[in-house]
Amino acid sequence: MYVILVYDVNVARVAKVLKTARKYLHWVQNSVLEGELTEAGYRKLKRELEKIIDLDQDSVLFYILDSGRYAERELLGVRKGGEEWIV
Amino acid sequence: MYVILVYDVNVARVAKVLKTARKYLHWVQNSVLEGELTEAGYRKLKRELEKIIDLDQDSVLFYILDSGRYAERELLGVRKGGEEWIV
Repeated sequence: MYVILVYDVNVARVAKVLKTARKYLHWVQNSVLEGELTEAGYRKLKRELEKIIDLDQDSVLFYILDSGRYAERELLGVRKGGEEWIV
Repeated sequence: MYVILVYDVNVARVAKVLKTARKYLHWVQNSVLEGELTEAGYRKLKRELEKIIDLDQDSVLFYILDSGRYAERELLGVRKGGEEWIV
């Protein structure tokens, strides 16, 4: 499964959320990561993030694409994701 | 085409970017909008955003899904998008 993750968490937890998400996915932009995951990997990532975030304050949103990947990704402006864009 | 838009722009331009994007898409989370667009609508949205953002500083990222929509959307934590989640 291909996953796009977008988080909106309190600044106190950003570093930890990003560090955890990067173990599983590629960073593409501020608050956005994506990548291919197994079902097991996806469950593990969710479990780890659930322990870090404040479920009453923070949001972590997953888009799951089962058709391989998205059709296209287009960028306006500056590329912030560095080499991890090329995945 | 189904579009997920994620922006990372300077605070000085956030309000204008959000206002413009909302004319075309539904707001789902801080910096994230999504929705169905025609090709013409997508081009128009990009043109409008290009005029607002600083192309050397800001990022607006579009994921284009041509297979209708994503397979699933899952949320950890608090729902920030209000009723526009139900689209």
